[in-house]
Amino acid sequence: MSVNQSLKPITTKINDNGNISIGGCDLKEIANEYGTPLYVIDELTLRTICREYKEAFSEYKNIKMMYACKALCNMAVSKILSEEGFGFDTVSGGEIYTVYKTGVCMKDVLFNGNNKSKQEIKFALDCEVGRFSVDNFYEAGLLDKLAKERNKTAEIFLRITPGIECHTHDYIQTGQTDSKFGFDLTQVDDIISLINSKYNNLHIVGLHAHIGSQIFELQSFYDEIIILIKEMERINKKFKLNMNEMNIGGGVGVKYTENDNPPSIKDLAEIVTKAMKTCSDNLPTIYLEPGRSVISTSGVTLYTLGSSKQVPNGKKYIAVDGGMADNPRPAMYQAEYTAEVVNKANYKEKERVTIAGRYCESGDILIEDIELPKLETGDVICVYNTGAYNYSMASNYNRVEKPAMVLVNNSQSDIIVNRETYEDLVSEDRIPDRLRK
Amino acid sequence: MSVNQSLKPITTKINDNGNISIGGCDLKEIANEYGTPLYVIDELTLRTICREYKEAFSEYKNIKMMYACKALCNMAVSKILSEEGFGFDTVSGGEIYTVYKTGVCMKDVLFNGNNKSKQEIKFALDCEVGRFSVDNFYEAGLLDKLAKERNKTAEIFLRITPGIECHTHDYIQTGQTDSKFGFDLTQVDDIISLINSKYNNLHIVGLHAHIGSQIFELQSFYDEIIILIKEMERINKKFKLNMNEMNIGGGVGVKYTENDNPPSIKDLAEIVTKAMKTCSDNLPTIYLEPGRSVISTSGVTLYTLGSSKQVPNGKKYIAVDGGMADNPRPAMYQAEYTAEVVNKANYKEKERVTIAGRYCESGDILIEDIELPKLETGDVICVYNTGAYNYSMASNYNRVEKPAMVLVNNSQSDIIVNRETYEDLVSEDRIPDRLRK
Repeated sequence: MSVNQSLKPITTKINDNGNISIGGCDLKEIANEYGTPLYVIDELTLRTICREYKEAFSEYKNIKMMYACKALCNMAVSKILSEEGFGFDTVSGGEIYTVYKTGVCMKDVLFNGNNKSKQEIKFALDCEVGRFSVDNFYEAGLLDKLAKERNKTAEIFLRITPGIECHTHDYIQTGQTDSKFGFDLTQVDDIISLINSKYNNLHIVGLHAHIGSQIFELQSFYDEIIILIKEMERINKKFKLNMNEMNIGGGVGVKYTENDNPPSIKDLAEIVTKAMKTCSDNLPTIYLEPGRSVISTSGVTLYTLGSSKQVPNGKKYIAVDGGMADNPRPAMYQAEYTAEVVNKANYKEKERVTIAGRYCESGDILIEDIELPKLETGDVICVYNTGAYNYSMASNYNRVEKPAMVLVNNSQSDIIVNRETYEDLVSEDRIPDRLRK
Repeated sequence: MSVNQSLKPITTKINDNGNISIGGCDLKEIANEYGTPLYVIDELTLRTICREYKEAFSEYKNIKMMYACKALCNMAVSKILSEEGFGFDTVSGGEIYTVYKTGVCMKDVLFNGNNKSKQEIKFALDCEVGRFSVDNFYEAGLLDKLAKERNKTAEIFLRITPGIECHTHDYIQTGQTDSKFGFDLTQVDDIISLINSKYNNLHIVGLHAHIGSQIFELQSFYDEIIILIKEMERINKKFKLNMNEMNIGGGVGVKYTENDNPPSIKDLAEIVTKAMKTCSDNLPTIYLEPGRSVISTSGVTLYTLGSSKQVPNGKKYIAVDGGMADNPRPAMYQAEYTAEVVNKANYKEKERVTIAGRYCESGDILIEDIELPKLETGDVICVYNTGAYNYSMASNYNRVEKPAMVLVNNSQSDIIVNRETYEDLVSEDRIPDRLRK
């Protein structure tokens, strides 16, 4: 079993106090010490999945793991991934800035995105990121111009839409023909001709595609790679190019609930390798962009139970101190999660409840209908698999401070993102002089 | 026509340059000066709807307007609303802190919410907010205890779920029986008995209900008020109380597209007054909590067009420099918006496009299928009616800085929220010493 097939961080245990612990840290104590809501990242789970990726693809030598920062981007996580030999798939100046400040090797950074701004491209060139994934005609011209101004050559992938429909939420399916991303297959020759004839400061190293996120069927990856290989071989021949890199994107799913059965990383490696072997020539260097599958399982969110409400002849709502602002996925994607009560790990008597958030909106429901031990105010609830797309999508809705994030390992806990304060919330507010009487 | 029935700020014009202006400010110039994406608030539109509310309800003398801060909360907007005689419906310590720092009269502040924390209640008591809307049994006990510790009496509404289903998005319908909010009608006598017998530091001033948001049918308000009146009269009689306040919530809709036909504020006032006249006794003081209808129309968002993509035999996507992080409503609620091109206000030739955002997700589409003048990179697009639930729900998804906000009036523009910087994004990140080699 690989980490992405686990519901919980791999260090999850019930300790002698009957409390759940992760990374050797009692989660009830962690909640007391740092307050809730609290994001917790288990370092060993994170390092283990990184090593599983490396191990699974060890036979296929020419592979670069590029962590998709959009899943969760901060300096401590970037530092760990960098130590594990991962590069970074970034999609904004802010992500590039974060990994730059962390001190990672910028050659191992790739800049993706359907609408990179001029300012961001300049910043990326000045930071000397290793690769750009060029998404459209406009970007190609802009990047060439800005690279020329700097007397640099940008090493680029061309992002294409392979025309693959995979089974996942519409919002996170990205390989279909009707997509805002990348070049349609019918446009590829035009962009290559344009670059060859006019854009001297772009160097095409390969093609890039991405089919979506939270994908369970490996066949989609196989189909995608076959399309990429055929296109690369056709283009290399037609345009006498030497493209020898291929960015196949990311997208392996994780296990949010018992009903989810994501493939193992080993199975992914096997199908990718099998597909690559259909190449006629030398095997190209693969870039892989896992995000969710790298970080999700290592993360949990702790909440404290406050009020509750029994609807007569209806649901029992229990309300926690967080919700849709720290985890918008249930409201945005109808996402499902698994939770347990940290301080009642061994309790046998259960009740069926709905976990509501604290935000002033009926849509703010974290988990509908879950069996939990009989609950009381002050109980600490652990929601699993929140490492990805929780903090990264968090808002200050209802003017609530974003939670802190703690890294746990070997019974040690360290703050890696400070909790926001009331003062932070107003720090950028200004009242114009003319409104001051 | 009242302001909430307008698609655009009331000062919207096409100026001599053929550009759209708001508050006398050329939006193309504003975009150049402050950068995009940019939230713009038109002060006159905001003050006008405030005055419409006051005017419409002027016959019904005992009325308090409590702006629902969750729609948009910052110091400059709070200052203007306070000048217009509005109080504040708050739902968090952060909102209370913001209006407190603005210097509004704290007696005109009401604290709502289904799961107020102990820390927030303490803060609200220490700030001497005027009213608490008590949502559940747990909160009643906690508030009484904390008020007692401070030798204070909390003036409270009891929030009830009136059992009304109104036509709006499920997420923002709040009056139905199966709700996380408030006391079920069958629980009201229990909480009143409990307060009367044990909670000496709570003083019940009235009942509170809220049926939802973006509501077009006034009949729902009428039905709600009738239920509130009946309950108040029944309770006053049974428990020999003197409740004489009634919080009827908010929720009048606004006009996001030509297809939306929200009622006027005058019509709302008429139906509320008509319903109130069914009271047997003295007319109670009404608290009204408009949020969206107060702020939405005064706000627009400016974006600059970057890349575009023509899908062969399919859609034309144009990509702007913002999207689902500064306006999550299309992704979250399938919300629709109206947009125009600021610098091509008089152009006749149109094309049908889909406005995509810059975020790395297929769900990041701001407007599907809209007719706009032929577009080029650098064009500035104005999306109307973004004053409510845009900035307030904004995230840093993809590690992108939150936009700035500008107040325009009488050809003057002033920053009221600074744009975030890359440095802001990492300012709370910490790398533990043990990870530093």
